[in-house]
Amino acid sequence: MIHPTAKLGQNITIKEGTIIGKNVIIEDDVYIDYGCIIRDNVHIKKASFIGARSILGEYLMDFYKDKVNKVHPLVIGENALIRTENVIYGDAVIGDNFQSGHKVTIREGSNIGNNVRIGTLSDIQGHCDIGNYIGIHSNVHIGQKSKINDYVWIFPYVVLTNDPTPPSEVMLGVTIDSFAIIATGSIILPGVHIYEDGFVGAGAVVNRDVPKETVVVGNPAKEICSVRKIKNKVTGEPAYPWRHTFKRGMPWEESDYEIWYNGLNVKGDE
Amino acid sequence: MIHPTAKLGQNITIKEGTIIGKNVIIEDDVYIDYGCIIRDNVHIKKASFIGARSILGEYLMDFYKDKVNKVHPLVIGENALIRTENVIYGDAVIGDNFQSGHKVTIREGSNIGNNVRIGTLSDIQGHCDIGNYIGIHSNVHIGQKSKINDYVWIFPYVVLTNDPTPPSEVMLGVTIDSFAIIATGSIILPGVHIYEDGFVGAGAVVNRDVPKETVVVGNPAKEICSVRKIKNKVTGEPAYPWRHTFKRGMPWEESDYEIWYNGLNVKGDE
Amino acid sequence: MIHPTAKLGQNITIKEGTIIGKNVIIEDDVYIDYGCIIRDNVHIKKASFIGARSILGEYLMDFYKDKVNKVHPLVIGENALIRTENVIYGDAVIGDNFQSGHKVTIREGSNIGNNVRIGTLSDIQGHCDIGNYIGIHSNVHIGQKSKINDYVWIFPYVVLTNDPTPPSEVMLGVTIDSFAIIATGSIILPGVHIYEDGFVGAGAVVNRDVPKETVVVGNPAKEICSVRKIKNKVTGEPAYPWRHTFKRGMPWEESDYEIWYNGLNVKGDE
Repeated sequence: MIHPTAKLGQNITIKEGTIIGKNVIIEDDVYIDYGCIIRDNVHIKKASFIGARSILGEYLMDFYKDKVNKVHPLVIGENALIRTENVIYGDAVIGDNFQSGHKVTIREGSNIGNNVRIGTLSDIQGHCDIGNYIGIHSNVHIGQKSKINDYVWIFPYVVLTNDPTPPSEVMLGVTIDSFAIIATGSIILPGVHIYEDGFVGAGAVVNRDVPKETVVVGNPAKEICSVRKIKNKVTGEPAYPWRHTFKRGMPWEESDYEIWYNGLNVKGDE
Repeated sequence: MIHPTAKLGQNITIKEGTIIGKNVIIEDDVYIDYGCIIRDNVHIKKASFIGARSILGEYLMDFYKDKVNKVHPLVIGENALIRTENVIYGDAVIGDNFQSGHKVTIREGSNIGNNVRIGTLSDIQGHCDIGNYIGIHSNVHIGQKSKINDYVWIFPYVVLTNDPTPPSEVMLGVTIDSFAIIATGSIILPGVHIYEDGFVGAGAVVNRDVPKETVVVGNPAKEICSVRKIKNKVTGEPAYPWRHTFKRGMPWEESDYEIWYNGLNVKGDE
Repeated sequence: MIHPTAKLGQNITIKEGTIIGKNVIIEDDVYIDYGCIIRDNVHIKKASFIGARSILGEYLMDFYKDKVNKVHPLVIGENALIRTENVIYGDAVIGDNFQSGHKVTIREGSNIGNNVRIGTLSDIQGHCDIGNYIGIHSNVHIGQKSKINDYVWIFPYVVLTNDPTPPSEVMLGVTIDSFAIIATGSIILPGVHIYEDGFVGAGAVVNRDVPKETVVVGNPAKEICSVRKIKNKVTGEPAYPWRHTFKRGMPWEESDYEIWYNGLNVKGDE
């Protein structure tokens, strides 16, 4: 069931049971698996894969009053790999090379950059900024007003909160700077700022800012050392800043961080 | 595919792919989105919205023995807004003005009052009582035998447990009194009673009762102060008891708590 | 839509909207509910139930490059009860009498024994070994390289991790020995070994091995006593080792652990 206003490119696969709404644009080489619901005003860029039963352009609250779908565009960048049963709202923008696990929810007002991965069951509550080259693992909850800069890692069951005195109308989002790592199951309290290369240990409850290159652990979280003291368990080499030891999926994958970074500077192309 | 014994009211929308079983009652002005499964003996009251691919009247354990669906009614109150892919079992009752996020599970024996909201991915394990005007946020787990009174707030990733010596056949549910707040990621241990206006801080592991108007934090949770000491970060005014500072979605939304409450007393209608 | 190469046994029920791929084998007395996607090379053994909209034989990463499904078999043992909306990948093996809740994800490389139960929303990340008679409750995250021996209990929101210095290429899985109990919301750090009858308290963050019959609690977890000191809240009898006090679903259900175990030894059949 494809609405006549939809614009379809070349070499598109659409499996049985998919519904495509008004003013949808699907570019070349897109593959849409069984039973997806693509609501109105969704734009899927080229070579993207949409997993079975995903719902794109999901209704915002204003739909439910009169059952009329207002214009809330969703853009999915090129070369996305969206696994099954994602729900992605209208009024959201997702960059190129996006990957998601199963059953991810992304709400309106989410601005997501390029080369972002979001794991199974994660819940992006919207009205947030997520930069580039970010790895968000399974079952992570990103509260509204969060700001996540490039090259951040967030591991399973982390929650970024936003209301300092719940319930209230105040919303103080969490800010995470580049190269920071938020380990499994930690909770970041409203308004906390985690600075560059900060490391939040597993299960930490973080109620104050985390300085640059600092490790915090515990409930409440306390500073314990510099990230530079942590060694890789196998090589014995310093593990952090991780950009010098890890390159899979990063823009410096083909060389190393220093060469890539200096190349950028020398050539002036960033 | 609508079973001939189903009773449908006026002005009903049923989108493609929905299946409606035996003895289903759907009242006026209900909207059922794509691909829902409404199993036998479900009653959906007027003006409710059922999100795409929700499953209502889900099978209990007794179905699986002989693949015969026994009579386990489910009632959904008026004006519900159930988002996509909820699974709600038979033998459950949900009041009016219910709202749920995506992919919520509600099992048999759940008694849910009016004006309750339950967020995306939350899992209500059944055999529990949930009162009125309650906000349960995303990914909350409500164990069997829980009892949640009116005007309670429960934030993401909270778990209410019930077995003090797992695995065992003993079940001691958690009790939460009115106006209590359970912040993100806290775990409430079996049999714990949280009294009126109690506040459980984020990430707390609560192994003993929380007295009235008391703040507890930490693992294990310890009492730190009265809720009356906590100020709103923006206004600087006392934030608790929150019924004096927050009214969105509450019955005193049009006035304030004192006026509403005194009005009730004067008129004797509560 | 059933591919002509599929082999179907006797007395099979397949509800509307189900898709069955190439070289699928479905044995006698299997029931497949509405709208399942059974991809290629899935083998479902007799008397199993597959819940609505489950996806079996889900694509591995190699599919997405050329949109050609390689051979990655999935075997589901006899008498499975898989509830709705599970996603189970190819290259996995699940034993007999498996039960799962709703919306469970099981990835490639999962080796799961007999009589295992996995609760709603749990996420088995694959490349892991899960033995027999294991109870994994709701919303549990089992990281790659985990090894879980027979008769283990894992309660809601537990996470088994594997990367000691994230992000890195090192993976040190968690090992859990028989009869151990991992209570709600605990996080087990990479490479930790929990020995027989170990007990991890709710909300613990476990960064070192847990000796046999030892209780650990807190963040970071500390040893507090022997499991033999914990009494059942109702009977007042010692609650652990639990195999002497709990038998539901266990192979000694019809007698008790001692009789069953001694019977095995005497007969030499284990």
